[in-house]
Amino acid sequence: MIVVSSIKTLRHKLATARAIGTVGFVPTMGALHDGHLSLMKRAKKECDFLIVSLFVNPLQFGPKEDFKAYPRTASQDRKKARSAEVDLLWLPTEKMLFSPDFQTSIEVGSITHLWEGASRPNHFKGVTTIVGKLLQIVRPDFFYLGQKDYQQCCVIRQMLRDLHFETRLHICPTLREQDGLAMSSRNTRLSAQKREIAPVFYHALQTAKKSVQSGEKKTKNILQAAKSILDATKDIQLDYLALCDTITLLPIDRIKNRAVLLVSGNLGEVRLIDNILLKVPSAPNKS
Amino acid sequence: MIVVSSIKTLRHKLATARAIGTVGFVPTMGALHDGHLSLMKRAKKECDFLIVSLFVNPLQFGPKEDFKAYPRTASQDRKKARSAEVDLLWLPTEKMLFSPDFQTSIEVGSITHLWEGASRPNHFKGVTTIVGKLLQIVRPDFFYLGQKDYQQCCVIRQMLRDLHFETRLHICPTLREQDGLAMSSRNTRLSAQKREIAPVFYHALQTAKKSVQSGEKKTKNILQAAKSILDATKDIQLDYLALCDTITLLPIDRIKNRAVLLVSGNLGEVRLIDNILLKVPSAPNKS
Repeated sequence: MIVVSSIKTLRHKLATARAIGTVGFVPTMGALHDGHLSLMKRAKKECDFLIVSLFVNPLQFGPKEDFKAYPRTASQDRKKARSAEVDLLWLPTEKMLFSPDFQTSIEVGSITHLWEGASRPNHFKGVTTIVGKLLQIVRPDFFYLGQKDYQQCCVIRQMLRDLHFETRLHICPTLREQDGLAMSSRNTRLSAQKREIAPVFYHALQTAKKSVQSGEKKTKNILQAAKSILDATKDIQLDYLALCDTITLLPIDRIKNRAVLLVSGNLGEVRLIDNILLKVPSAPNKS
Repeated sequence: MIVVSSIKTLRHKLATARAIGTVGFVPTMGALHDGHLSLMKRAKKECDFLIVSLFVNPLQFGPKEDFKAYPRTASQDRKKARSAEVDLLWLPTEKMLFSPDFQTSIEVGSITHLWEGASRPNHFKGVTTIVGKLLQIVRPDFFYLGQKDYQQCCVIRQMLRDLHFETRLHICPTLREQDGLAMSSRNTRLSAQKREIAPVFYHALQTAKKSVQSGEKKTKNILQAAKSILDATKDIQLDYLALCDTITLLPIDRIKNRAVLLVSGNLGEVRLIDNILLKVPSAPNKS
């Protein structure tokens, strides 16, 4: 595994790789877990050369958010990347990506004002700006994101289309702990007591899924099914629970064919998000 | 000369060209004049393959500005491009560049709030968004802009650096009519009477230049020299006249080595801009 820091060296290595075959890219903020490794595994299978970046992006954290507390586990990350047969591990520094007069941003519109964007002003602007920068440097044929950050995937897909990026985005399934909690670098920040409660988001999503599978189509009732589970847990400060169109993320009144159920809430200091794709059963059980 | 409209065909042609040599790009809004042709001439000299785009970008016009009135001279433009030995003329349509759900923008910060940006909100955001899109599609080795839009050149240079574009920007000298008026597609919209007055901007810049050449270093006095020329003409509504740092475009009190003098004003309905680079003489005449 090549470990590179400077943009110039990286571009040099990539030019060689690109001449031989396809380049796959998994951008991360480090604190790698099995979710990241599953993205790498898929990329490794589909591409000739796999590059993984590790960079905790200051732009996407709000002033009151956990940029400083965000877990940093550099040496473990290296070992994990090596075990995932990453070809090139890129460790840019803040100085390399942000010159002192840095002042440009990439911003996606209406879809970023919803849900996570409503609660975290400038979060998606920070995400699209850094992803745009990284993609411009790496220019991968394919890049890989996890479905856990569903809205982020939609926002980035919109940016790729609107700005004519030639890379292809693959959204990979959310990996979960045995008890259903969606894997996230933030999970390590949960206290033992909060960690025990955390799978309640997953249970709520599953309950909604069952309700749809049994023929429920009204958003109100589907949400009520999920909310009854969340309400049973006092420690959760729910931010949103919303049944949405899978592309525009606008809330829908009724599920016709497919929909995404998005949820976010705080468990103590830690913000958790999760989601599930819902599909109306092809042979309806009830009307 | 190949004439192409679709992005897909364009990319196909460019892939072939890129495999053989360097690609030079001159983005234009059409209504080609000798200023544009001088950019093409330079690009043709420096690159193996020259692509010119013609697209009147709606994003960079304000609601009260002259998007509809902007001169459109498609068939003349083709002839001129052919005479300039353009290899590929790209004529994208609005529909190709903006899908119905288009919602992404590229925005440069502080440098866009000054001068033209102060008078034309969202103008530079429209410019950087379209230029970012075009560059992402064309991916030229070199691209060419005219110094006449000096602030625009600075803004785009900042975007290129901040977003790691791999293209190199060449800023080419302003071409002028015999009487000194900077060439601009907008000049055709001047009435005969206004056209006669228009070179006053150039005379003002020249007067400032003479003042610097004769040893003047104080901004106040340099501006006064230029302003005395402009004030003699009643029909001009001056927007700004400013002596600035050549990179940051912040106003300076005193010229140390180099500076740029920016001017903009309205002549009737038509907004004109111009600028001149000023340099302190190496052997000072007076203190």
